[in-house]
Amino acid sequence: MGEWRLRREDVEDIVVGAAIMGTGGGGDPYIGKLMVIQVLERGAEVVLVDPRDVGDDSFIIAPAFMGAPVTMFEKLPSGRESVKVVEMLESYLGRRADYLTPIEAGGLNSTIPLYVGGLTKRRLVDGDGMGRAFPELQMVTFHLYGVSATPMAIADEKGNGAILDTVDNYWAERLARILTVRMGGWASIAIYPMDGRVYKEAVVPNTISKALEIGRALREAKAAGRNPVDAVLDVTGGYRLFEGKIVDVSRWVEAGFARGEVTIEGFGDYKGKTMKVKFQNENLVAEVEGEVVASVPDLISILDLETAEPITTERLRYGYRVTVIGMPCDPKWRTPKALEVVGPRYFGYDIDYVPIEERVKRLGVTG
Amino acid sequence: MGEWRLRREDVEDIVVGAAIMGTGGGGDPYIGKLMVIQVLERGAEVVLVDPRDVGDDSFIIAPAFMGAPVTMFEKLPSGRESVKVVEMLESYLGRRADYLTPIEAGGLNSTIPLYVGGLTKRRLVDGDGMGRAFPELQMVTFHLYGVSATPMAIADEKGNGAILDTVDNYWAERLARILTVRMGGWASIAIYPMDGRVYKEAVVPNTISKALEIGRALREAKAAGRNPVDAVLDVTGGYRLFEGKIVDVSRWVEAGFARGEVTIEGFGDYKGKTMKVKFQNENLVAEVEGEVVASVPDLISILDLETAEPITTERLRYGYRVTVIGMPCDPKWRTPKALEVVGPRYFGYDIDYVPIEERVKRLGVTG
Repeated sequence: MGEWRLRREDVEDIVVGAAIMGTGGGGDPYIGKLMVIQVLERGAEVVLVDPRDVGDDSFIIAPAFMGAPVTMFEKLPSGRESVKVVEMLESYLGRRADYLTPIEAGGLNSTIPLYVGGLTKRRLVDGDGMGRAFPELQMVTFHLYGVSATPMAIADEKGNGAILDTVDNYWAERLARILTVRMGGWASIAIYPMDGRVYKEAVVPNTISKALEIGRALREAKAAGRNPVDAVLDVTGGYRLFEGKIVDVSRWVEAGFARGEVTIEGFGDYKGKTMKVKFQNENLVAEVEGEVVASVPDLISILDLETAEPITTERLRYGYRVTVIGMPCDPKWRTPKALEVVGPRYFGYDIDYVPIEERVKRLGVTG
Repeated sequence: MGEWRLRREDVEDIVVGAAIMGTGGGGDPYIGKLMVIQVLERGAEVVLVDPRDVGDDSFIIAPAFMGAPVTMFEKLPSGRESVKVVEMLESYLGRRADYLTPIEAGGLNSTIPLYVGGLTKRRLVDGDGMGRAFPELQMVTFHLYGVSATPMAIADEKGNGAILDTVDNYWAERLARILTVRMGGWASIAIYPMDGRVYKEAVVPNTISKALEIGRALREAKAAGRNPVDAVLDVTGGYRLFEGKIVDVSRWVEAGFARGEVTIEGFGDYKGKTMKVKFQNENLVAEVEGEVVASVPDLISILDLETAEPITTERLRYGYRVTVIGMPCDPKWRTPKALEVVGPRYFGYDIDYVPIEERVKRLGVTG
């Protein structure tokens, strides 16, 4: 309960923790970190509020980046576009947002609302619409609770912008995605305008606090000479799924998404085995020797073996020594209706979703 | 000067005349005719005003269809989308349009503003932004006079809509085009919101009257047993460029445009010669035996040999016996700046623009 102010020293921890929750997507943590530090150094206050303290009639907007993260290295976001989309949407709806919320957890998409909120004196809610990252706009808990993604605003760094108003959230995804592609690979969006009543019901709560807790545990473990991956697993209730060296990464940008597959050759306990992780912006399915060990909507993150720093899908490279971890998703994603939206079959994999707790039990993995 | 009311018996003439001015594009005349007749039969009044009588401070919007006309046969427009985009744009700008204007001359795009105007009690201006049809949004005289295409509204028949606000008119074209493609091939737009002062300066005036005059001359010539093509040439100051039979049509939809080329084998005075007409929604360049006889921005129209009925590019078929005519464009299109926007080089042809009057003199064609 209550509200808290973001401290400079928390930024690094939040960004690292959010990137781990971002399962390879959610945007580049380095860009996200720079943006929030910049706004704090200008003397702005970033105020976070517990979802339970959000008034029923308050008005909430989610600013985010959309598109293939890899394209962000070619044209860097300035942050101005993110302020612009929030103001465009407010102007269109004739109402100022009382709060901003992250739409997802991720190195950039957890932090961009902090940046905009700090810069424009709007408070943030400590929660988001996924508790992880997903590649498509309708893949948010807000969608499961009937919130319309539109009216939404979308803008590029050149000054082009649009307001979209669609018949459903899948059409919002389609039209925004094609605009994102035409705008150069990524765009800023402000989306899911909603009131506090539905927000409180639909949100995955306290995910900024959670990111902070994960990042801090990781940092403190390293400082104390303990294994940082173990620290992350303790805090998240996750499982160590694999350790090895990346021997192949194939990737392609397809219909506005960064798609691909990474192949990891095991060592240590995993010697002689091969893991493949398939991704679409985010890691979706992890297999060892062809057997699925984790799948969406559960979280799959690839961490540096030594430092436990998360590696986003666009930064995966041959030769990296990594630990792959799996973490249970928020229970809101495990209903039949939710699995139609984000289960493995939606992404084209002919497998049933089995909660990671059961998968690892079958495989004899210990948390 | 003054204003006049559209009569039921004028509709057919306007649609035929506008389709001839539409140079193969501007949308299907048959669909355009049905829409206007429908609104008149509901008892609505369609009031047209001379551009000189438009007040400086009045507010004007251009509704139109955008996209590859061939896709309209698969999903027919209902007209509702066209009312919706006008209202969306008005609502976004907080101002009701005093007048609607056609953006171009063409069987559908000349008539859709008449339909919307009649249905929603908005008056029409007798003029448009081309005096012909062109395939891209920036190819209007309004653009030459510095008017911004945006804010613009775009919507499909399913209920999806967007407001675009871009840094220039080329970006409006790019983003609207890709949305049009995603929306299924065509979309309704409301565009170029502007005041009466700039409109009067930029418009190609009295093009609805002109279409009516062309269509009427054609019909009366047929009734009197005179050659209807001659009647069209008299009224437009145009030239008979070729007569023959269509022996090949190649076409493809590319980046939202209907592109293609039609090959015509001459007969009569043209026996032994072949004409090729290249099109992108509209007819762009006509060549006889490899020599250019007419090019954008001058008008090239393909008419049925017997009836002089215009044939839009999507209706061109093997075996049709046709007359190809050329007509001089409005002088606004003949400046160096305008030729950068709509000259043959913009469309990828490595030729200089030569006014049709000079081309036909060289070739010994008589009007």
